[in-house]
Amino acid sequence: MSALSKHTAQSVTFSDIEDAHDRIKHIVKNTPIVSSSLLSSWLGHEVFFKAECLQTIGAFKIRGASNFIAKLAQQNKLPKRIVANSSGNHAQAVAYAARHFNIPVTIYASNTISAVKAAATQYYGATLLTFSTRPEADKAAYEASLEDGTVWIPPFNHPDIIAGQGTAAFEAFEQLDNIDAVFVPCGGGGLASGSLVCAKHVSPHIQVMGVEPLAANDAAESLRQKKIVSLQGPPITLADGAATPSVGEYTFPFLQKLDGFYEVTERDIAYWTQWLQHLLKLHIEPTCAMPMQGVFEWLKTQTSKQRVLVIISGGNISASSMQKIWATDYLNQPPILHKN
Amino acid sequence: MSALSKHTAQSVTFSDIEDAHDRIKHIVKNTPIVSSSLLSSWLGHEVFFKAECLQTIGAFKIRGASNFIAKLAQQNKLPKRIVANSSGNHAQAVAYAARHFNIPVTIYASNTISAVKAAATQYYGATLLTFSTRPEADKAAYEASLEDGTVWIPPFNHPDIIAGQGTAAFEAFEQLDNIDAVFVPCGGGGLASGSLVCAKHVSPHIQVMGVEPLAANDAAESLRQKKIVSLQGPPITLADGAATPSVGEYTFPFLQKLDGFYEVTERDIAYWTQWLQHLLKLHIEPTCAMPMQGVFEWLKTQTSKQRVLVIISGGNISASSMQKIWATDYLNQPPILHKN
Repeated sequence: MSALSKHTAQSVTFSDIEDAHDRIKHIVKNTPIVSSSLLSSWLGHEVFFKAECLQTIGAFKIRGASNFIAKLAQQNKLPKRIVANSSGNHAQAVAYAARHFNIPVTIYASNTISAVKAAATQYYGATLLTFSTRPEADKAAYEASLEDGTVWIPPFNHPDIIAGQGTAAFEAFEQLDNIDAVFVPCGGGGLASGSLVCAKHVSPHIQVMGVEPLAANDAAESLRQKKIVSLQGPPITLADGAATPSVGEYTFPFLQKLDGFYEVTERDIAYWTQWLQHLLKLHIEPTCAMPMQGVFEWLKTQTSKQRVLVIISGGNISASSMQKIWATDYLNQPPILHKN
Repeated sequence: MSALSKHTAQSVTFSDIEDAHDRIKHIVKNTPIVSSSLLSSWLGHEVFFKAECLQTIGAFKIRGASNFIAKLAQQNKLPKRIVANSSGNHAQAVAYAARHFNIPVTIYASNTISAVKAAATQYYGATLLTFSTRPEADKAAYEASLEDGTVWIPPFNHPDIIAGQGTAAFEAFEQLDNIDAVFVPCGGGGLASGSLVCAKHVSPHIQVMGVEPLAANDAAESLRQKKIVSLQGPPITLADGAATPSVGEYTFPFLQKLDGFYEVTERDIAYWTQWLQHLLKLHIEPTCAMPMQGVFEWLKTQTSKQRVLVIISGGNISASSMQKIWATDYLNQPPILHKN
């Protein structure tokens, strides 16, 4: 589907993220930083959250898609038609961003797409084509992308997507001073890559950590094997935003430069989703509650008071996920960090 | 417990709410107005939400408690000790407001208080005493309130509480123009009373509607019988914030002046809690999702485009409530208003 050339971790620079920020700041929201004094008190450290669940379309994905299309507009290369294959936040992101530039857009999805995501994608003006299986949808999107005047928008594995996703951290560093560490969920690695570039520009001393579900740990496995490996079949995880089969050739070199990488159990993903929903009063996805387990484990090893930034990636959750998240009551077990 | 004299609906004026606003604006948050373009599009009307779930302590209750204590401070009548009986948001509100004024506070609750609400109440500095039953807790609070230098803070049935709760609508009318109708959840009636006074001052043409669970419809029954009647035993409703056994002698005269009153089924409470959590990306209580069913029914009768304000009262939800709210998938049934 993509004809991307080999690239290195230098493929996206801080200046690319600055440019992306200028390009998309009138399209995306500068989301607020939120925190919980109770949580910070229990942990003995300060934790701040960049609330991308309050972003347009309910997820950070609008940043990459907007940057990709806005850059084409800047270069006078806007296509006649845009296509993308996704059943999730990327579908809504591409639909919304394409409408902003008045480009017709077609989304190719499997017919398992949730009613609510289908409705939102269509509300943003996209034509939605559904197929019996995801590979069929992918194939149809690929064939459509070969048509004249048509551009396919990749979900993560492209410098312009990475630079766009990096604008969340860019804004956060304008909103917050003296951050010691950043924790980011890792699916395809676009958000993690962009956040890394941004944080290391602000200060090379800022630790940047990726977090992944143990049940979909292709990135962790790739880091261990020093080569990109894919999941064997669709994973079963609450963190559906991090269930991507493999990272990409653009994102992997960045992931290799992360200061740490955490793999989180399904129990811990549900635990932190409950607690962050409760403490922050935000409807946040399991994917972005997951990094808190990484934060919790990392803080146990810290001897001085830390200021931590967590990128809350989104807030689009199916009813069946909500049922699973809340099946066990974890609110009876407050996340109190006992000093070692 | 209270020795309140008989009062009329003139007991709280707009000027009392203005005074309350000046008194507490440095203690409480001016919460944002949020909306969903998708929801407004589906309804064909504009609906705005005053997001009191993002308020300090996660609920509007901090407004009344703060006003009550701040007024005592203004009058140089701050007590040596404050007491309140509550297992819910009022406990946290009184704890937080008393700490602001450095007054020791004791909360009397039944031992069924949730671990998370107990922890928050204690975090705000209150001494928490728990009892086998709620009547025992109430009795102990009453006895404590008789002690010298001790003041009991009522949950809703007092002019200073009503004026304090009215500041949510006061702020909303500073944030929004041309509102046609206001929908408010009704438990004891403090929030509904304060919102009514405020809205009718802004314009007598603004319709103000109360909304109550059908399973705890003491206010609706009281309005029908033109006298305050109590629930027969504890109700079973998702909208626990509106499960108050009866309204009060201060709030009832205001409730009698409401322009409409809606009783909502448990199915509809769960339905709107799912949809508002999903669309607004906020962790909101069933109690404040409930008014949307009133809005939905009212909008069906409207022939011109309306601008509606809903006061979202809070966001403190137990895990067992979350399980019940999400037990059935209502996200497959979008709230689309078919024009009659």
